[in-house]
Amino acid sequence: MLKKMVRKVTKVAKPVEAAMVADAHDSMKKIALLGLGTVGTGVVELLALRKLHGVAVTHIYNRNVEQKRAAWLAKHAQKPAHKLIENAAWTESIDEILASDVDIIVELVGGVTPAGDWVRGALARGKSVVTANKQLIAYAGTELLKLAAKRNAHLLYGAAVGGGVPVIPGALQGLGGDSLTQVSGILNGTCNFILSKMEAGADFAEVLAEAQALGYAEADPSADVDGYDARAKLVILARVALRSEIDVEAVETESIRRIAAIDFSYTREMGCTIRQISRAQVDGRFVRARVAPMVVPKSLAIAGSHGTLNTVVTHGAFGGDVVFSGHGAGAHPTAVAVVSDLLAVVQGSAQVAQPVRKREVTGEVTAPHYLRFIVRDKPGIVSGIAGALARNGINLDTILQHTGFSKDRLPFIATVEPCLNTTLRKALKSISRMDCMLEPPLCLQILTAEDKSV
Amino acid sequence: MLKKMVRKVTKVAKPVEAAMVADAHDSMKKIALLGLGTVGTGVVELLALRKLHGVAVTHIYNRNVEQKRAAWLAKHAQKPAHKLIENAAWTESIDEILASDVDIIVELVGGVTPAGDWVRGALARGKSVVTANKQLIAYAGTELLKLAAKRNAHLLYGAAVGGGVPVIPGALQGLGGDSLTQVSGILNGTCNFILSKMEAGADFAEVLAEAQALGYAEADPSADVDGYDARAKLVILARVALRSEIDVEAVETESIRRIAAIDFSYTREMGCTIRQISRAQVDGRFVRARVAPMVVPKSLAIAGSHGTLNTVVTHGAFGGDVVFSGHGAGAHPTAVAVVSDLLAVVQGSAQVAQPVRKREVTGEVTAPHYLRFIVRDKPGIVSGIAGALARNGINLDTILQHTGFSKDRLPFIATVEPCLNTTLRKALKSISRMDCMLEPPLCLQILTAEDKSV
Repeated sequence: MLKKMVRKVTKVAKPVEAAMVADAHDSMKKIALLGLGTVGTGVVELLALRKLHGVAVTHIYNRNVEQKRAAWLAKHAQKPAHKLIENAAWTESIDEILASDVDIIVELVGGVTPAGDWVRGALARGKSVVTANKQLIAYAGTELLKLAAKRNAHLLYGAAVGGGVPVIPGALQGLGGDSLTQVSGILNGTCNFILSKMEAGADFAEVLAEAQALGYAEADPSADVDGYDARAKLVILARVALRSEIDVEAVETESIRRIAAIDFSYTREMGCTIRQISRAQVDGRFVRARVAPMVVPKSLAIAGSHGTLNTVVTHGAFGGDVVFSGHGAGAHPTAVAVVSDLLAVVQGSAQVAQPVRKREVTGEVTAPHYLRFIVRDKPGIVSGIAGALARNGINLDTILQHTGFSKDRLPFIATVEPCLNTTLRKALKSISRMDCMLEPPLCLQILTAEDKSV
Repeated sequence: MLKKMVRKVTKVAKPVEAAMVADAHDSMKKIALLGLGTVGTGVVELLALRKLHGVAVTHIYNRNVEQKRAAWLAKHAQKPAHKLIENAAWTESIDEILASDVDIIVELVGGVTPAGDWVRGALARGKSVVTANKQLIAYAGTELLKLAAKRNAHLLYGAAVGGGVPVIPGALQGLGGDSLTQVSGILNGTCNFILSKMEAGADFAEVLAEAQALGYAEADPSADVDGYDARAKLVILARVALRSEIDVEAVETESIRRIAAIDFSYTREMGCTIRQISRAQVDGRFVRARVAPMVVPKSLAIAGSHGTLNTVVTHGAFGGDVVFSGHGAGAHPTAVAVVSDLLAVVQGSAQVAQPVRKREVTGEVTAPHYLRFIVRDKPGIVSGIAGALARNGINLDTILQHTGFSKDRLPFIATVEPCLNTTLRKALKSISRMDCMLEPPLCLQILTAEDKSV
């Protein structure tokens, strides 16, 4: 019996309470924080609030660190967060941190370079890493996880997708048993903030400016509104949930910049709204993946995501749909994800891992679509559009035209029955050439209740 | 450097990919399945579908095992599940399984006894346990986790709450960094099925019979409709999310049996519906906890749970509200939770653990309430009710009375402004004594958008 138990001890990782007891005896885990911006400050505040046992922030990295240090400590004087890091080594030398006896690096600087080299450097030295860096994990996550495993280090990145919404641990630990085939969601809080304000009547430019003023959107809003931020998150979800490794840049993105007030007015009449949706679906050796503004029926759970809320819906072959929703951005929710990962690293709680398969990406999808035209009115427009669609085997479903617009610049919409988006684009190319068209038609996929995982 | 890395290897638990590689070298993990009912069959089917590496079901326990074996194998002939267990040792002797070289016990028999003794026996022998047994974990989870830790075994119970909704791993791994203060949810699929059918016009007795025919409700539906099933889950969530150990039987439950069609008709007029809600909220050394039918505004996320869907909303001091939703019952979703836990055990992925504090339970809550009276009509009823409320310092908000009912048995409702439920009960006790009252008033808490975590 004794022999058997000894064998077990070496085979089974340190469980729950044993880990806690062990921590009490182990030395303190030393943490270096790279980047003391909004999220970094949130992490320090949360660590101070939670008074987590066995953890000490010993190093702070920031650019212009002397200035940063003075300003930060002044701003946080008298606060518990101040006490937590006032005696840390503040540095702008990554090499100093990598060469130190720090156990865990919390990387919050973002971007593929130079952060990627720093993370590689830490893992190569056997230091564990907790990061919120979605671009780095999207592009290099698999390589970095392998490096971490080789060095017996942990690499956790729960904050990279969904901010405070625990979809990564949920999918890995909670849905690991299922065969997940689809994941869709609202992954970018800025787009959702903009589109839900537009739904309530605001204008794109106006609400973008508001989002920038509130700190939700960057001065250059492209990563958000053009879909690159959501794309990185979708690629990570494809890996974690669909166990599919896909090429980031092969995933098609469409900007939300062309969505106008008129589109909300027409979709409202259809019982729908418009949201930036990220979807990926396993289909044999392909993953069908897209990030685009889509028309969403208000009856779907995902349409209920207002403001900066993130919502992710997974679909499992066995367990069906599971919804995760919460605050996807902001210093505090993101800090929750970072500190939760930190806790897991400190306790040696490894994520469940499963084989991941490389799959090709296609943006092809068969779905109903919403088309919005802006024309100089004259006879024959509808028949011209209908003809072009018919020649491509596409059935018109409805045509809607509100009154009260000038015939010189008349907006109207059509919806088409489910068709292949690439075929529809061909038809739209020829429609664009009609001389009445004042701008290229806007074309949005319509989600339906029959789509799994919406 | 070498010395340092060696030290790290002993300190940090086996991470992700390393665990997978190790598994390939380790011997197969042997699994005993206790209980081959609906969920057990789902687990076998899912294991056959996923073809999980490194796992073999070597033992099946069931009562009347010879009969069970013949019937089950005949029913599943030609199916992949058949192949998975046809050569297992089928037994009705738990002692045989405990004495065997099985590594992991999957306990699906349910109930505190004798399942508790079997789980204890397995853990005491260093065997890990995966269970869906909510009553056992509610009553004895802390004791069993301690025993597991002592024996270097794992005890996972993700299927005990929410079926396929990964709220336990989500809270432990994903929200471990936050300070969660409140958890509410729809935790019993049977009640939700019944109440959402009643919302659509069905009668309680009729829909209960339908639920029983569909296998959602037991012949004795008390555990579901009277709240004991949801209570066990709430106690587990209080431990996992609120880090509070509370006495199961101290948590007040109210049956849904008294809810009638008339209540849906009145609450519909208020923009609300009725659901069985389980709530727990940390308040100093207390946890305010209740399981009861409550009036839920349709604008709240939780009102969108139809049929057997489960929804859990956690509220964190730092990260705000997080919603988890999905299929809370049924063989397949529950099997997903069981197999996900199995995967975690096989990979040695320990759950994040945090100190849990004993807290006292109180059912006291300050909230607006819905009151429904059935009276023999006569003058002075409203003034009698209003007087009794006023004497207890409770303000009437609205009174609603539909036409078309007999004066001999007249239903009408009132809502009262936020008040302490215990004070309200005192007022209702005196109101009950009014000779016009044909039955004791029905009193339901009304959830509001201001309540956190709904």
